[in-house]
Amino acid sequence: MDKEPFIEQRASATGASKLGELATPCLILDAERMQRNIARLRTRLDHLGVSLRPHLKTTKCVEVARRVMASPAGPATVSTLQEASRFAEAGVRDILYAVGIAPAKLARVLELRAQGVDIAVILDTAEQAQAVADASRNAGVRIPALIEIDCDGHRSGAAPTDRDRLIDIGRRLADGAELRGVMTHAGASYAARGSDALRQCAEVERRSVVEAAAVLREAGFACPVVSVGSTPTAHNAVDLTGVTEVRAGVFVFFDLFMAGVGVCRIEDIALSVLATVIGHQRDKGWILVDAGWMAMSQDRGTSKQDVNHGYGVVCDMAGNPYADLIVADANQEHGIIALRPGSNDKLPDLAIGDRVRILPNHACATGAQHGSYHVVRGASDIVEAEWHRFGGW
Amino acid sequence: MDKEPFIEQRASATGASKLGELATPCLILDAERMQRNIARLRTRLDHLGVSLRPHLKTTKCVEVARRVMASPAGPATVSTLQEASRFAEAGVRDILYAVGIAPAKLARVLELRAQGVDIAVILDTAEQAQAVADASRNAGVRIPALIEIDCDGHRSGAAPTDRDRLIDIGRRLADGAELRGVMTHAGASYAARGSDALRQCAEVERRSVVEAAAVLREAGFACPVVSVGSTPTAHNAVDLTGVTEVRAGVFVFFDLFMAGVGVCRIEDIALSVLATVIGHQRDKGWILVDAGWMAMSQDRGTSKQDVNHGYGVVCDMAGNPYADLIVADANQEHGIIALRPGSNDKLPDLAIGDRVRILPNHACATGAQHGSYHVVRGASDIVEAEWHRFGGW
Repeated sequence: MDKEPFIEQRASATGASKLGELATPCLILDAERMQRNIARLRTRLDHLGVSLRPHLKTTKCVEVARRVMASPAGPATVSTLQEASRFAEAGVRDILYAVGIAPAKLARVLELRAQGVDIAVILDTAEQAQAVADASRNAGVRIPALIEIDCDGHRSGAAPTDRDRLIDIGRRLADGAELRGVMTHAGASYAARGSDALRQCAEVERRSVVEAAAVLREAGFACPVVSVGSTPTAHNAVDLTGVTEVRAGVFVFFDLFMAGVGVCRIEDIALSVLATVIGHQRDKGWILVDAGWMAMSQDRGTSKQDVNHGYGVVCDMAGNPYADLIVADANQEHGIIALRPGSNDKLPDLAIGDRVRILPNHACATGAQHGSYHVVRGASDIVEAEWHRFGGW
Repeated sequence: MDKEPFIEQRASATGASKLGELATPCLILDAERMQRNIARLRTRLDHLGVSLRPHLKTTKCVEVARRVMASPAGPATVSTLQEASRFAEAGVRDILYAVGIAPAKLARVLELRAQGVDIAVILDTAEQAQAVADASRNAGVRIPALIEIDCDGHRSGAAPTDRDRLIDIGRRLADGAELRGVMTHAGASYAARGSDALRQCAEVERRSVVEAAAVLREAGFACPVVSVGSTPTAHNAVDLTGVTEVRAGVFVFFDLFMAGVGVCRIEDIALSVLATVIGHQRDKGWILVDAGWMAMSQDRGTSKQDVNHGYGVVCDMAGNPYADLIVADANQEHGIIALRPGSNDKLPDLAIGDRVRILPNHACATGAQHGSYHVVRGASDIVEAEWHRFGGW
């Protein structure tokens, strides 16, 4: 595996440094907010009687993963084999690779299993099931697979009512591999609004996999795992009967999009980008900062929600939003800060060299632009630690 | 400097490998198209009698930089001090850091100058000029600075007609630092359409800096450098009288956005993302691949152009577009391939495990999601080399 660095960040000073001393732009993680967010979902799922298999694609960081997983060995969900490998190196032993398997990737899955990692794959076609069974027989190792169920027409997955397809996949897997269960993701919940709609999404999500599991069990397959997952449904499900585990990722940090969906408040968002003022266009009401789309990502998810936050909400150094102040536009390394259209507020008095913190639309996307988290706690300006992040495939 | 890796990519096999053997998703660079693109702009600027200071923010790669710079020592333009440091390590000695300087970054500029790198900064305020002059006097080193001119209201910069501001900046710099010249970027050219409009943008860009230089020269400043730059204007300027250098970046690779602007053809685009088919939703006409927005970026720039290419145009393994086939939607690690709305073409017959190449909307954004370029030449499937890319700040 290529260990050469490809994105770097100047290290912060050894030991504790201050927000004012970090090279900008950089990623700030409020550990206090993060711990509150983790505790909130854990308490919720404990009451519902299901286990959490956190999706580590949001954080891609061993230190964060250890704080969100039930144990250092997992369970965990990942979106790439790079994540699987990196978390396996850090001791995670129970991993679901939750993107439909490509046959050429089975060699790496087998490598991980040979290292003692119980990694399972997902699939929704007979071709994939055949490839997994063939690879299993060739290696003499039963690769576990979950059948992906399409609960809302959002993306991939087999219909829970497509009995023939489910049983065909189950039979192919049985010949050398292992049918471990069924899983789905309520992608449509991201577009839902209000508790009623979100509860409805959660129930549709639950019912689809429970139904698919019943079809498979009637046909003689044990189907022990019944897995659902999305942050909006995890925070709104009222009954998870028949479900064995919940996957969710962005709940750890939250973001402006999730605030728009209604599953968190702005003040729960644990991630921000630290930026420095580098200019003004005073006649236009613009403040220019050194965080453009390279630092924020180009995720404009909130542009389709009730409140469009541009490229992010601008906060002071303690993490409190300025009234109506957003990153209205962005170039690669320039953010243009302005008041929301129609605002009656006044631009804050920010001079060249002053710093701000910008809350992201989408934690997964903004995080991926950075090589590390600089960890703070609440309104303190002390940077307690720098936690490495990774990416790639 | 922190040398720990944060995004990794499994290395391709040592020596030559084939496109079909690479782990997907990954970034493919067609060196034949790239060399043609580089030669095209070089020939053009030679005729216009100006030098090229290529913007390396697009490529962030030493091997590509060496092919686009006039010499291994430069000149070059960068958008971050990380780029400045990395290219300096590779021998580049003439660098323009073309994002408005934050005073806290001057220490790193001075470090680079102490290493023998002639790095210049840009600025557009008296406060920045004062900070540069103060840092210069404190270090006993004249930091060179260019005044950024606003030619089209697009972003930052002082108006070329704002005589008092230009001269105030010049005087402050003169007290310890160096006023090296003026520069501008015709950001509005990205929204222009047609040769007439682009020629007009180029002329506005030229005139603004030439005018600003005249103001400064009348006031007694030498102002030797008069710098303009954007790929659309570089390819459309018909007269660059008074201009000493042109900066441009994306011309090296081109992308769908630039094809939409009209400065290249689709078949000039040198960058693509290799992806594998991982599923189908046949009733919807969807093909699912393992390149989502993490691999493509979330740049949807073409959505505001005449032809909306979604997240990218889908090509076969030789780099030839399938008729009307685009990445219509994307999640983090899923791309949904479909025909353009209203198309009468048929979906190609792509099975699980088949591979495609996807042309990006924006080369700078898509490149930044990857740790290396896998280099091919034309329609050949031989991967000649893997060139490292870096990111961060």
